[in-house]
Parts: sequence; structure tokens; C-alpha cells
Amino acid sequence: MMNYEKFYADRVKPMKGSAIREMFKRMADPAIISLAGGNPASELFPGEELSKIAGKILMTNPVGALQYGTTDGVPAMKECALSRARKVNAVKDGDQVLIMTGANQGIDLTTKSLINKGDKIIVENPSFIGSLNAFRTYEAELVGVDMDDDGMNMDALEDALKNNTGVKMIYTIPTFQNPTGTTMPLEKRKRFIELANKYDVVILEDNPYGDLRFRGEEVPTLKSLDTEGRVIYAGSFSKILSPGMRLGYIIGAPEFLEKIEILKQVNDVHTPVLTQLMCAEFMKKYDIDKYIEKNRELYGKKCAVMLEAMEKYFPAGKVKWTVPDGGIFLWCECSGIEDITPVMDKALEKKVAIVPGSNFAVDMSAPSNKFRLNYSSATPEKLEEGIKRLGEALNEVL
Amino acid sequence: MMNYEKFYADRVKPMKGSAIREMFKRMADPAIISLAGGNPASELFPGEELSKIAGKILMTNPVGALQYGTTDGVPAMKECALSRARKVNAVKDGDQVLIMTGANQGIDLTTKSLINKGDKIIVENPSFIGSLNAFRTYEAELVGVDMDDDGMNMDALEDALKNNTGVKMIYTIPTFQNPTGTTMPLEKRKRFIELANKYDVVILEDNPYGDLRFRGEEVPTLKSLDTEGRVIYAGSFSKILSPGMRLGYIIGAPEFLEKIEILKQVNDVHTPVLTQLMCAEFMKKYDIDKYIEKNRELYGKKCAVMLEAMEKYFPAGKVKWTVPDGGIFLWCECSGIEDITPVMDKALEKKVAIVPGSNFAVDMSAPSNKFRLNYSSATPEKLEEGIKRLGEALNEVL
Repeated sequence: MMNYEKFYADRVKPMKGSAIREMFKRMADPAIISLAGGNPASELFPGEELSKIAGKILMTNPVGALQYGTTDGVPAMKECALSRARKVNAVKDGDQVLIMTGANQGIDLTTKSLINKGDKIIVENPSFIGSLNAFRTYEAELVGVDMDDDGMNMDALEDALKNNTGVKMIYTIPTFQNPTGTTMPLEKRKRFIELANKYDVVILEDNPYGDLRFRGEEVPTLKSLDTEGRVIYAGSFSKILSPGMRLGYIIGAPEFLEKIEILKQVNDVHTPVLTQLMCAEFMKKYDIDKYIEKNRELYGKKCAVMLEAMEKYFPAGKVKWTVPDGGIFLWCECSGIEDITPVMDKALEKKVAIVPGSNFAVDMSAPSNKFRLNYSSATPEKLEEGIKRLGEALNEVL
Repeated sequence: MMNYEKFYADRVKPMKGSAIREMFKRMADPAIISLAGGNPASELFPGEELSKIAGKILMTNPVGALQYGTTDGVPAMKECALSRARKVNAVKDGDQVLIMTGANQGIDLTTKSLINKGDKIIVENPSFIGSLNAFRTYEAELVGVDMDDDGMNMDALEDALKNNTGVKMIYTIPTFQNPTGTTMPLEKRKRFIELANKYDVVILEDNPYGDLRFRGEEVPTLKSLDTEGRVIYAGSFSKILSPGMRLGYIIGAPEFLEKIEILKQVNDVHTPVLTQLMCAEFMKKYDIDKYIEKNRELYGKKCAVMLEAMEKYFPAGKVKWTVPDGGIFLWCECSGIEDITPVMDKALEKKVAIVPGSNFAVDMSAPSNKFRLNYSSATPEKLEEGIKRLGEALNEVL
């Protein structure tokens, strides 16, 4: 029998299958109401439109759709990505765009292009586990900055920049953050850019949810406020068209993107061509903004259902939560307990699933009295029923 | 203006846009006959069949095709990969399979799971530039082993294993190798496995061309000869269905694949679902072996056209070449020159493109008197005309 352990690279030695994955296995029971995942609503997926588009592309342009493509992406798809990004002023003169097999690939390969073992990345604490784990695979040291109800605390960010040497990058989801659902206001964003300029670090701005505002005013992207070319902007079609198609992009200075393109070339050569052509044709033929508008309305309604049910069923005064203006998540904090695990276990008994806060923390081993809720995936009826059951679990434990 | 250089990770500092890429830019002229790329023949792409399949999947199962999938792959697609691998006895009891966004992703992430900076990887010299560059991005040290007309020289392999400490992996394309077109016979494969066992190293067996034999007897895969679970097998649908769909897979011991799955999770989360469902449905509904058989015949015919033209047009006695039994490449060596660049330049003037051998070498800076030819992509008429023009270039330079 081989000793497999001795072959593992240092970067994967500490890695176990993710806790979320294990939890999803426990959730395989179809009776379970999941408030745990990050799936967009599937009610509105344009299956019929995409069916016609895919059929036509393969019939009229089989070689174009099935032969090798170029690493940077299909030209029409690159134009789609740029047109989405231009809406939020995220494209500067001279910027390049790379189509990615999901924005996550952009985050992974951006990190690979910048981070040596031991380099520091400042992150919101809590933040998206997929990105944090990507950073961990490059043996980055993560420096967490606490969150206010309106995004990263700027004094804490300045302290982190002042007190750490070797910080190369700040990673942020400034709008409808995962997992907290919070949004950084303009004044904070301006200070954020000033601090990045002062301490000369790269900003990786991840904006998968920015299109999903159902309340309040748009806030400018960090990319639009950047005058020095230090922001790499990651966009996604996962939450506005289809996550299964795995279409994302990054936009930034060619000095950054040329290196990332080489890393993509050796990673998956290029993003599948058919899905790129389908997305480009969908955007040409249909009004994607109208489609997004329908999703916004649906998410606003679902969020309201969840918040109303929380008021009704959660134990009074014992749970605090964020009230998002868009996106798909909100964030809860319980008083009177150190660790949320008993609540999660009790909730699973009642067949409702949530994600414990520790999964999103820089230090995943520390107990957390917080949890994340998703309102985009379940139907309004299931959301109400799920929160009712979760309320029972909270009442029993708290 | 930012100093971008200071942000680059060490691994990307030496990387320039690939020479092949630059050459492909020079080849943008549509009048050029390309014998340079690695594209499979597009004449036989089953566009109509895939059009119907894609249309039906999106119409009848839009949520299944468009929502998030699982990292390991769609079950029906995993079964397709296993059934291809079982044909070459590449699946052992207890093995796992991971669907990859092209086999290249499997090679990239396998390397990421095993290789620390400075670890050594033994490779065929010359070998596939995409894999060599993937290894370079993990700061592996490449140890090249010279090739015979029937694959890696086994004495040279033993020397490499004996004389190097820190070898973790041997990378090989044993069948219809890229770029040489050579195939390792059974006796060599047995010794290869013995040596890997003796020196306790992992084998990464890359087999994208194995299905494309048009002459001679099948040779068992290394994976089928492995009794210790040390071979990770990479398979691909790029050369038997469509490269643009980006569908590949790796098969091996769960101790290896569990780590690689975590790395895929943070890389692209999962391979796009639609293309997986399309491939699975194509294999269920149509006889893929019949489709592959048509490709084999076509490649056998095209290879014969190329070889015959080479006999006719190349300067007598000045160029040696390999005669492949399958796959899509052959390999030429010129006498009387140290470096092939003048031939390539002269050929490009005559509007025919080849790839200089240095691109496939462990030491890319050393001059090479060799070049790679591809016969799968161009039509028989273009192949004949391309070799005629290349013969003129060779006659002028040699």
C-alpha cells in the first residue's frame, strides 16, 4: 500500500473536504428546506430561449461552437462582459477582459498570479468561503477585518494595513456581501481606495450580486473610483443568467491580465465555447436587463417574506440580523450562546438547513454564534415554513 | 503609475506570452496553411446531433442544466468517463473519477495537489507545452528524459530517478505522444511501472490520443499495469467529440482525488453542466465508437497523405521523421542546421506554419533542429500543398 500522504503538496495537507460539503450531504433528504446554499432562483431560468439559441448555434455554426477557442474568450462574449461592466463604470481605457469559467476561476488565477507563500491578503471577516479557500491553496496568510453593518470597518482596515508587512491584496465583496448581505457606502469606498493607494496594495473587487438591488440607490463600484489601475474587477453571469453555465470575467490593467491569461491557458485552455456563444446570443436577442429586473423583484419579495417571518417566529430580542438592499443572503447573530452548532443540529432535526458562521471566518476553528440565511433559492412558502421551523429551533436552544 | 512588477508572484515573473501564441498571431492570415496547431478534424463534428440534444435538454430539464452542479461532475457524465476508461482497463476497484474542464485542468490541479516549489517532475523531452507550462507555474523543477523512436528511453529514465532527489512525479503521454507521435511498447511500459515502484514516485498518464489508433495493435495503458495505485490517469473528450466543449477527466486513488476535488472546488466550482449532459446524452443515444472509427479512418488517410508528400517534397536524406500509428502529430529532425527558425520563417513566407521544437523542450532557450507537424486539422488537399511549400522552404535553407 502506498503512503499517499508523503506525496501531498504542503498547500493541500491541512485541507479537508469542506464542512459545507459535509453539511450538504446531511441535507440530501429532499424534505429538507435549504436556507443554506447560494443558488439563484431557478423559477425564471430562460430554458426555452436558451434551448432555441443552443440548437441554432450548433446547427448553423458547429465548427465555431465545437472547435478549440481562444484563451481570452469568444469576442462576442468579451463584448457582453464589457457591456455589463461598463454599466457600473468598471472599464477604463486600456483595460483588458478575460472570460472565466465562473468568476471563481478569476479569483483563483488572480491569486495565483500575485501571491507567494506567506504573502498577506486582507479579507472581510466573515467572507465567501470559496475565495478564502482559494487564497489558502496559495498559502497566503489571511488578515481578517471586522465588518460593520455597512461593510468593512475602515479604521480596522487602516490598522491592518499599518500593522502588517507583506500585504499584497485586499479582497472585498463591497455590494450585498457574502455572507453578511451588507453594502459599503460611497464614503467608505472612497476611503478604501485612498488606503489602498497609500499602502500600495492591489484590490480584488468581487461583484457577483451587484445587479440584484431591490431597494435603495446604486453605489459606485470600487473599480469606477480607482485612478491608479490597482483594482481587478470580477464579474459573473451566475446570478443574472445561470450558474451552471459557469460564465464570469475579470477586467483590469493589461499588466495584471496578461499574467492571468497565461495561467488560464495552462488551467483549462479556454472557457467552453458553446456556453459563451449562448450567453452572447441571449444578450443580443433578449433584454437581459428586463430578465434581471424580474429577478430583482422576485428577490425583493422573497427577502421581505423571510424578514417578516423572522420578526414573527424568531425569539424576541435574542437574534440580530442584517437587512440587505439586494443580493441573496442575510446574516444573523444570536445572543446567549457561544456556538451555533446546537441550533444547526436542532434545525436539521426539524428539516431546515442553515450555514454556521465559522465557515466564513478567517479562523474556522473558533466558535461562532452567527449563521447565514439564503432567500433566493426556496419558494416564498418554503421560506416562511423554513423560518418557522428555524424559529422553533432557536426558541428551544436560546 | 503603478509598479505592477512588484506585485507578481515569483511563479509568473519569468513567464511571457507563449511563443506558440505569438506565432499563431503571425498566422492570422487566412491564406496560411497551418500544420502547427493541435486541432482535431472538424469535418466530422456531430453538430446536428448535438444541436438536437442541447435543444431538448434545455427544454425539458432547464433547472438541471442551468443551476449549480456538483464539483465531481454530473453522474451520467462520470459514467461516460468511466466507460471510456474501462475500455483501456484504467479503472481499479475503489478508484474515483473527477470530471474536468478539459484534461488540462486535471493536469494543472493534480500538479497543484502534489508539487511544492522545487519538487522535481520527470518529463519526456520533448513534451506537451501546456503540461510543461502548468508544471512551471508550480515552480517544479523539470527533469527531461530523451525519447527513442518508441517513447522515453528507459535507461535514461532510470538514471534520472537514480540521480535526482525530490522526484515526486513522472509525466508521460505514452501513446501517440505530443509532439513526437511515438508510442511506448508493452515491455517498456512494464519497466516504466517497475521503476516507478522501485523509486516510489507518482505517474501522471495523459492519454488524449489513445482512441485515435489507425494502424497496429493496442498497447495496455500504464494505469492498467499499475498494482499499487500510483498512476493518475487523465482522459479527454477533446479529440473524440469536441475540444470546444472542454470535457476531460481524471481517474485514480481516492487519496489523490479527494485533494484534487478540493482544488477544483476553489478553481471553477464545477465543469459547466450543459456540456456534460450533452456528452452523456450523445454517448447514450449514438454510437460514439462508430464516430471515433470514422475519425480514425480520416486521420489514417490524412497521415498517409502527409507522409507521402514528405517523401516527395522534402530534400532527400536531410530530414528524418517519426511514423505514427495514431494520434495527430509527427516529429521531424533536420540535419545540417542547429536551429529551425530560418525554416519556420521561410515557410511562413510561403504561407505554411509549423511549430519549432524548442517550444516542447525542457530548456526552451536551447536551439532545436526539430519541428512538429499536425495532420488532423487541414484537408488532404491542403496537407499536400502545405508539405509541398514546406519542402521548398527546407530545400532553400538546408
